[in-house]
Amino acid sequence: MALWRDNIGRMAGYVPGEQPKDRRYIKLNTNENPYPPSPRALAALAAFPGDRLRLYPDPVADALRDTAARVYGLPGRDWVLAGNGSDDLLTIAVRTFVDQGGALAHPEPSYSLYPVLAGLQAARAVAVPLDAAFALPADAAAQATAAGASLFFLARPNAPTGNVTPRAAVEKLCREFAGVVWIDEAYGDFAPDHCLDFPVRFPNVVVSRTFSKSYSLAGVRLGLALACPELIGQMFKVKDSYNVNVLTQVVGEAALADQEYLRDRVAVIRGTRDRMAAALVAMGCVVCPSASNFLFVNPVRISAAAAFSGLRERGLLVRYFPGPRTGDYLRISVGTDAEMAALLAAMRELARAG
Amino acid sequence: MALWRDNIGRMAGYVPGEQPKDRRYIKLNTNENPYPPSPRALAALAAFPGDRLRLYPDPVADALRDTAARVYGLPGRDWVLAGNGSDDLLTIAVRTFVDQGGALAHPEPSYSLYPVLAGLQAARAVAVPLDAAFALPADAAAQATAAGASLFFLARPNAPTGNVTPRAAVEKLCREFAGVVWIDEAYGDFAPDHCLDFPVRFPNVVVSRTFSKSYSLAGVRLGLALACPELIGQMFKVKDSYNVNVLTQVVGEAALADQEYLRDRVAVIRGTRDRMAAALVAMGCVVCPSASNFLFVNPVRISAAAAFSGLRERGLLVRYFPGPRTGDYLRISVGTDAEMAALLAAMRELARAG
Repeated sequence: MALWRDNIGRMAGYVPGEQPKDRRYIKLNTNENPYPPSPRALAALAAFPGDRLRLYPDPVADALRDTAARVYGLPGRDWVLAGNGSDDLLTIAVRTFVDQGGALAHPEPSYSLYPVLAGLQAARAVAVPLDAAFALPADAAAQATAAGASLFFLARPNAPTGNVTPRAAVEKLCREFAGVVWIDEAYGDFAPDHCLDFPVRFPNVVVSRTFSKSYSLAGVRLGLALACPELIGQMFKVKDSYNVNVLTQVVGEAALADQEYLRDRVAVIRGTRDRMAAALVAMGCVVCPSASNFLFVNPVRISAAAAFSGLRERGLLVRYFPGPRTGDYLRISVGTDAEMAALLAAMRELARAG
Repeated sequence: MALWRDNIGRMAGYVPGEQPKDRRYIKLNTNENPYPPSPRALAALAAFPGDRLRLYPDPVADALRDTAARVYGLPGRDWVLAGNGSDDLLTIAVRTFVDQGGALAHPEPSYSLYPVLAGLQAARAVAVPLDAAFALPADAAAQATAAGASLFFLARPNAPTGNVTPRAAVEKLCREFAGVVWIDEAYGDFAPDHCLDFPVRFPNVVVSRTFSKSYSLAGVRLGLALACPELIGQMFKVKDSYNVNVLTQVVGEAALADQEYLRDRVAVIRGTRDRMAAALVAMGCVVCPSASNFLFVNPVRISAAAAFSGLRERGLLVRYFPGPRTGDYLRISVGTDAEMAALLAAMRELARAG
């Protein structure tokens, strides 16, 4: 008999994201921010007294949560949970709201971690198919409920498609679904609107944010979950006591307090994104409307798989998800204008050759 | 119906460790190291280029794991898993090896997190009572097996008692128990011997280490699990992809590489510990033999609860665990010699008054 659980043994081995070391690439494959973090965040790191590393961090991250409540307009820090990246929060969500043998729902295609988290809990993943335009179907709540789901993960903007479910459709889902609706706003800062007001309006809604994209802090691992104190309190029981290290708390708080820098960088990235989308459309590509810091692009003149390989040969890393719903597309992170010019030149070359 | 799982709802709310802000205390309650981290670790932090925080950390922490395999004498990095503190690794252990409705075993008294992790998994915690001298009973494996446990957590040295299970007794447990034996060596660097050779000898054994005690790095959150590649591979599936942030990887690797500093600090702490134990015994206290960086002390002349309060009033924080097995004792972290002198003076005063 195996020493590990059946559900774990059945899962595929972990495949880390591509980090090739054979040459220097323009890295447009994991939706990192091309710009450095806020100078105030870096100053907070530089000013941190190293001797203090011998002490445990604040287990409840009060200073960070106070700042988050202020920035996000919530009543107080008991509406906020800090995680070791938003992946930590998604794991906590499944462990808080889904039993072994239970189920969680997610749109398909969406963030590929959602069904993996179901597998780790020995729970079922209920895939709710998006329509041809990657929109959420009107009966999403009914589908999830019928399949016994107690948690619904909704990425808004969605990944890898980049589009946003309209607020009215999210409201409908929150009203109709009897379990917890988790609105994953990892890319929320790049979107024209958000659902930060939902936690105060719905007792079954959590909104999560990450510092990995808009805040340029993927390396420090920080995410925040926002919900009513009842839901936050249950999730607090599940988190590791000291899940967010002291450097991350200090850096994250400083970054969060610098909303001016955030707005400035986000505006630059949105501008680059929209110019890049227009240029790709002008080349004959199909580009999904993006409210995020990446584009989901069907190259049309050549296959997505061939474009992926061709870009890689030319030193450009993008993301390709094989499969019936995603296999015609590339997911391309929005980099600097210079990186986008290099990408467009390579795409033109590939289209001519193809 | 509640939105959360029954097992979560039944658990007590999270109570963070005492962090009083009313005055300055001598903090001897969480077994932190009184000395700063290795200068090489602090130099690595200072030299880290802040711009790199925008990128994700290495998800598999290869450089850190290579260094760990070398330091711990293991065949290679596929014998090592890095965690966000060793609590992260203990959580991964339960999620990898214990089903909902299953069971894990642990000695009693021991680290209070073990039964909490069972509760979070909706699994049973099987407490194997230590004998009057806090030694593991000879039939520990049989007790755990009879109760259906698939995982056995053994802290070595044990907390809060500070003693070590003899290697021969650990070997017997590893041979007789059909599930996974997890030897939690959080305090292993302070002990006269260790079980770092067990992972290569037993396919069902994991040894874990933390950087929070001997390495003076509680703030950065880093733990390591050492086991055969088959067990490490299964646990890799369960961990969050980017569970160890980039600063922690860099600082931890530098600290690990500086074994000379570690040996020096550990020798100082052991010396202080042994002098402090002798002084407490001379005062009439009962002191459990400690192979750790703390002492488990029965004050004898006054109750442990009264001593705890009296020390607190005098600005000294120690740990008190009420209950039939632990309620006669204080757990006192080994601080600097000056801190120990203050503690002894306060204990003498309390004993005179009591």
